[in-house]
Amino acid sequence: MAHIEVLEGVPGIRSLVMFRPETGKHLYELAQVLLRGESTLSEAERELIATYVSHRNNCMFCRNSHAAAARCLYGDEANLVDEVLADVTTAHISDKLKALLNIAGKVQVLGKEVTQQDIDAAKLLGATDRELHDTVLIAATFSMFNRYVDGLASFTPTDPEAYKEMGKRMTEKGYVLPTPVAS
Amino acid sequence: MAHIEVLEGVPGIRSLVMFRPETGKHLYELAQVLLRGESTLSEAERELIATYVSHRNNCMFCRNSHAAAARCLYGDEANLVDEVLADVTTAHISDKLKALLNIAGKVQVLGKEVTQQDIDAAKLLGATDRELHDTVLIAATFSMFNRYVDGLASFTPTDPEAYKEMGKRMTEKGYVLPTPVAS
Repeated sequence: MAHIEVLEGVPGIRSLVMFRPETGKHLYELAQVLLRGESTLSEAERELIATYVSHRNNCMFCRNSHAAAARCLYGDEANLVDEVLADVTTAHISDKLKALLNIAGKVQVLGKEVTQQDIDAAKLLGATDRELHDTVLIAATFSMFNRYVDGLASFTPTDPEAYKEMGKRMTEKGYVLPTPVAS
Repeated sequence: MAHIEVLEGVPGIRSLVMFRPETGKHLYELAQVLLRGESTLSEAERELIATYVSHRNNCMFCRNSHAAAARCLYGDEANLVDEVLADVTTAHISDKLKALLNIAGKVQVLGKEVTQQDIDAAKLLGATDRELHDTVLIAATFSMFNRYVDGLASFTPTDPEAYKEMGKRMTEKGYVLPTPVAS
């Protein structure tokens, strides 16, 4: 049971943005720009950063749904997601993405954890200012979403099939505010 | 020096949203709805929650600027802000606000830290579902802002007068996206 009266059976953040669409609108629009907007980081890479931070914050709803979206987007290389969650250093991803995930992991702890060395290492591997900015903001944004979803104890499905469907929807439709239910 | 090339001398989050207004727009609009929109929590109370979370996250820019805004809004009772930062339990604020700050402090750590007992205690003191929702989302939002500002090492002024001016602007004008500088 969620800590506040939301529509029963609606999972995670969807139930919360339906409760309060005035704030939900900006949360969904932020996610849409960050994860689906024009970028030199692929949608799959950005979903992977979101998944990694949610995993480290132990937020099952965000982790499972964004992992499902990343698997959809990576296609054949879907096990990359599990490799990253098990150990970033040995995963079959680019060194630049490893350096960005290192920064995202620092941001998940706290902003000041990011050092000049972390930034220099990513830049040396080709990361641009815009990519660094977006990596930090994705990590910060999911540090918010994770706290929002778990802080209000919103419904977290346990059936893996439910997440597969969510991942498919997130890949095909992006982040679109759910229509409020007529009362 | 910030980790990315932003306009020199522009402090904190302002420099970052000028670098990337596509995401900045949604961050400012979220802050405006949460901290200035219609609510049964006063603007001063909401700024106090933002200040408390930023203080716990050791984010000097967000702490000092929102403390300045809270002091403006509380007027004569301005030392309330310092009382809360020193010790919530002995501060001269309502028991309901203490219960909400307790929840905000749990969210600052991680969403799952909030217990049914924390929620029940706040409800018993008159907190509504909407107030609980907004408290959790303000705490989550500042967990994002703090990481964004410090994760990119944005400029943090040390002159207390600079924050007084920011607090005045935030009180009078609210959260309005700064105009991008023509290149």
